[in-house]
Amino acid sequence: MQLFYGHIEETEFHLDTGEVKHCVKVLRKSVGDRIYFITGDGALYEGEISFISKSKVYGSFTEVEPEFGKVSYDLTIAIAPTKSMDRIEAFVEKSVEIGISRIIPIICERSERRTLKTERLGKIALSATKQSLKGKLVQIEEAMSFHDFLTERHEQILIAHCEYDEAKKAIHEAIDPSKALCIMIGPEGGFSPSEVLAAISAGAKPIHLGSSRLRTETAGLVAAATVYHLLG
Amino acid sequence: MQLFYGHIEETEFHLDTGEVKHCVKVLRKSVGDRIYFITGDGALYEGEISFISKSKVYGSFTEVEPEFGKVSYDLTIAIAPTKSMDRIEAFVEKSVEIGISRIIPIICERSERRTLKTERLGKIALSATKQSLKGKLVQIEEAMSFHDFLTERHEQILIAHCEYDEAKKAIHEAIDPSKALCIMIGPEGGFSPSEVLAAISAGAKPIHLGSSRLRTETAGLVAAATVYHLLG
Repeated sequence: MQLFYGHIEETEFHLDTGEVKHCVKVLRKSVGDRIYFITGDGALYEGEISFISKSKVYGSFTEVEPEFGKVSYDLTIAIAPTKSMDRIEAFVEKSVEIGISRIIPIICERSERRTLKTERLGKIALSATKQSLKGKLVQIEEAMSFHDFLTERHEQILIAHCEYDEAKKAIHEAIDPSKALCIMIGPEGGFSPSEVLAAISAGAKPIHLGSSRLRTETAGLVAAATVYHLLG
Repeated sequence: MQLFYGHIEETEFHLDTGEVKHCVKVLRKSVGDRIYFITGDGALYEGEISFISKSKVYGSFTEVEPEFGKVSYDLTIAIAPTKSMDRIEAFVEKSVEIGISRIIPIICERSERRTLKTERLGKIALSATKQSLKGKLVQIEEAMSFHDFLTERHEQILIAHCEYDEAKKAIHEAIDPSKALCIMIGPEGGFSPSEVLAAISAGAKPIHLGSSRLRTETAGLVAAATVYHLLG
């Protein structure tokens, strides 16, 4: 199934420039043809093209499936952006495919990357959402500091850290499946001991991700895949 | 911990060109310094540098830990190489970090990539082995055809496929943890129905990887992360 990203208003839809090229030039769709599209709101829509301009495709639509490709859990990953953009981009793409609700880039004491342009990550998330046949667009938040993140309200936080800590459990021992879940993944050098303490004071439960030493983006993917296995 | 890749003979070790530069130029190690290295045989070694030439570092060594960073299961992933080399490379890097024994590239009916240079994948695997503090080098086999793969002896094969099949189970319902495990992951277009049948006739159990539609390399990573969670 070929999915487009569109916008709806009352009973009409339109596709914007980027999608128009693919729809009209590559797939040679024309007036009267039917296409499937998502708007990021969760649903799958079927549209019938009624007019094609240089930069837009217009038409009418019906909703086909309200919770298209929805995963049965609500997972946020708060992750320190990696030094290499390729690595955080790979994390965004693959975690969206696996199934996740929200990504919050957090800037930590030991973060090597302290600023992040999220626009490109948003495009990667959209492309992965279409590719993996999901209706709901994953939110990529603007980067925030570790401490600002902790002041936000979260139903349930797990923090994956590498400090010595007897209380650390595996994800499946620590989660409460009835609550929305947020997992924190630190930068290349790990969370600092004072960050770990601050998170635990704010109610976060310490977890480990098994015995392997994982890079930041791999840790994020292992967390996403483990929750997908446990709750998906 | 900074790990090198070295070679041993009786009581002596040496590092080759690529590692020498990092050891001598970047980390400024000199005669008398101690370094940690692996040879890919599973162990962690500690060496003392006795001589540095232009292209080699020589010394004596002792074995520190025979099963350094060993995972407690034996997982082979037989995976169709992706059209984009970046994607199969990301799979190799991250699956080695997570913990895997062997990767077998398999060329399937619907494979878009039908040849594969494994040398670069071997380098990526070595780098990820060092990065993730493991002593055993993951074997990257030469690419083989789907059918040649099936004629090899495997203790236990699971095939992740997208065809309609009532018998498909989740990984945790299908595995026998007492046997070495091999999981087959198909190309972008999936295994063909005749390949699925051939695999099942050869004793493979059909599995699914949850409800999300995953790209080839993401499916491989989800399989590796799930086994790591279940058996690690």
